[in-house]
Amino acid sequence: MSRPPFDTVALIGIGLIGSSISHGIRRSGLARRIVGHAQSDATRQTALELGLVESAFDSAADAVAQADLVILCVPVGACGTIAAGIASRLRAGTILTDVGSVKGAIVRDVAPHVPPGVHFVPGHPIAGTEHSGPRSGFAELFDGRWCVLTPPAGADENAVDRLKAFWQGLGSHVEVMTPDHHDMVLAITSHVPHLIAYNIVNTAAHLERVTASEVIKFSAGGFRDFTRIAASDPTMWRDVFLNNKAAVIEMLGRFTEDLTALQRAIRFDDGESLFRLFGEARQIRRGIIQAGQDTDAADFGRPHGAAQPQTSLSAATKSRT
Amino acid sequence: MSRPPFDTVALIGIGLIGSSISHGIRRSGLARRIVGHAQSDATRQTALELGLVESAFDSAADAVAQADLVILCVPVGACGTIAAGIASRLRAGTILTDVGSVKGAIVRDVAPHVPPGVHFVPGHPIAGTEHSGPRSGFAELFDGRWCVLTPPAGADENAVDRLKAFWQGLGSHVEVMTPDHHDMVLAITSHVPHLIAYNIVNTAAHLERVTASEVIKFSAGGFRDFTRIAASDPTMWRDVFLNNKAAVIEMLGRFTEDLTALQRAIRFDDGESLFRLFGEARQIRRGIIQAGQDTDAADFGRPHGAAQPQTSLSAATKSRT
Repeated sequence: MSRPPFDTVALIGIGLIGSSISHGIRRSGLARRIVGHAQSDATRQTALELGLVESAFDSAADAVAQADLVILCVPVGACGTIAAGIASRLRAGTILTDVGSVKGAIVRDVAPHVPPGVHFVPGHPIAGTEHSGPRSGFAELFDGRWCVLTPPAGADENAVDRLKAFWQGLGSHVEVMTPDHHDMVLAITSHVPHLIAYNIVNTAAHLERVTASEVIKFSAGGFRDFTRIAASDPTMWRDVFLNNKAAVIEMLGRFTEDLTALQRAIRFDDGESLFRLFGEARQIRRGIIQAGQDTDAADFGRPHGAAQPQTSLSAATKSRT
Repeated sequence: MSRPPFDTVALIGIGLIGSSISHGIRRSGLARRIVGHAQSDATRQTALELGLVESAFDSAADAVAQADLVILCVPVGACGTIAAGIASRLRAGTILTDVGSVKGAIVRDVAPHVPPGVHFVPGHPIAGTEHSGPRSGFAELFDGRWCVLTPPAGADENAVDRLKAFWQGLGSHVEVMTPDHHDMVLAITSHVPHLIAYNIVNTAAHLERVTASEVIKFSAGGFRDFTRIAASDPTMWRDVFLNNKAAVIEMLGRFTEDLTALQRAIRFDDGESLFRLFGEARQIRRGIIQAGQDTDAADFGRPHGAAQPQTSLSAATKSRT
């Protein structure tokens, strides 16, 4: 086998994304060695047990000292502090990147700490599941998904190319754009959808006239689709909203404006507008499936007719039926 | 094999739900014979080809003449007209039911036409996929899902029990409630989620600063989950909103109120409130999985790393990268 493109990759943070990157590196032979840092003892232990890293450091600075590729895989709000802590230990020529869902704030918080000779190229793989932690990762997470890189003006071209090739090696398509444009695109394709999902789940949980048990039982009518993304990591998502405030609020404004118009159409029996709008939405779905970004299998290909664990529910609802 | 519980079931409408009921009846031997009515020639042909019905009538009245169980499987807005058209041909003792997602309006539109001696017991199986038409049905659709019956006061107990057993035979759990309560529960678990999904898909499609191609490419960040339910049948959903106006507008009011509070928390950097709220949403997800109403498989168990058809997208985006 030829020499891997990187010698030592340092994963700063070993959750869903960090552990998936590790599996992907192993699958494609993208590095000779993976080391990592995690704040908690338990995560470091798990990462070693699963073979996600060869060494697990309790100090991020120690973890990066030997690395030629450093990937920050922590919530957006933690990146600035970590950058400050590792700066003096980064070697010249090292590529420093991240996987944060917001890019403007990452540039703002991280760039000031990056020493000369270190190549800072922010990144964002648009992939994930609702599960968290070092056990939730898998090599295929990035296959066919897009990774956005937002290199600053004047970034080292070779470093950008190497990072591009790295993500392609993990199975991704790569696109380059500015941090601002990234934050606007992600506000509508990811941040606002998550906010809306969190919101309706909480609305449903606090009604007086419908019980939580009813919401759960009858969730197959559509609600349950929202609960998946509302089960994502709360720390990560708090940081996303606090760090992409302007774009999220702008997109929320558009969403609310459109929703108000829809509500008005319902109130005034404007079935024609409703029908037209609902029909248009099908086109976008078709585009996503054609682009390989979702499956056409009915109901996401959820298993139908599988054994249904009903124990806790039947206990909870016995008194009602 | 013992005698099936029904002799002839008439399916009025043979789309996703009608065809799934047919498959379920065959699987469990719930009727000796299935006949059906569909408006379009093509649907009747398909239904015969697939063996969904033994006879396909172009008149709903002809279809019900021999039936002891008649199931209206058409959009909510069509039920009243059909009831008027079949009333004189319904046999005494027949059970008349439906599968509409709204129950108050069905009672309002259908009940006045039901002749004495015919047992009208409205129903709603809370199950479905985003696909439509007679080819989209499958026997397992109702397995483990809930079916709500809303018999009117004084309904024939034997008829209600027989319909209950029928849905249980299709694999469902059955719950009885009033039409009003049903419409309130479904407004939050199904109708508002669909409206929100339609809305964000349309908001995303009409932005100036983000292209539709970008929305599609980067949809794996959360957006694509919404597009599934926004791909549901537009006629069915138009009718749902026009016929459950009061409950939908009430629930939308709650949703908007909560969303405004969330937006304010973002604006004023209230990370603590965001974190608390996001954490609570996870509980509901857990409840849904424990109740067997969704799968715990990461990302709905979507295939990861499968071949990605990229043809149309790469053509569309080639000029941009």
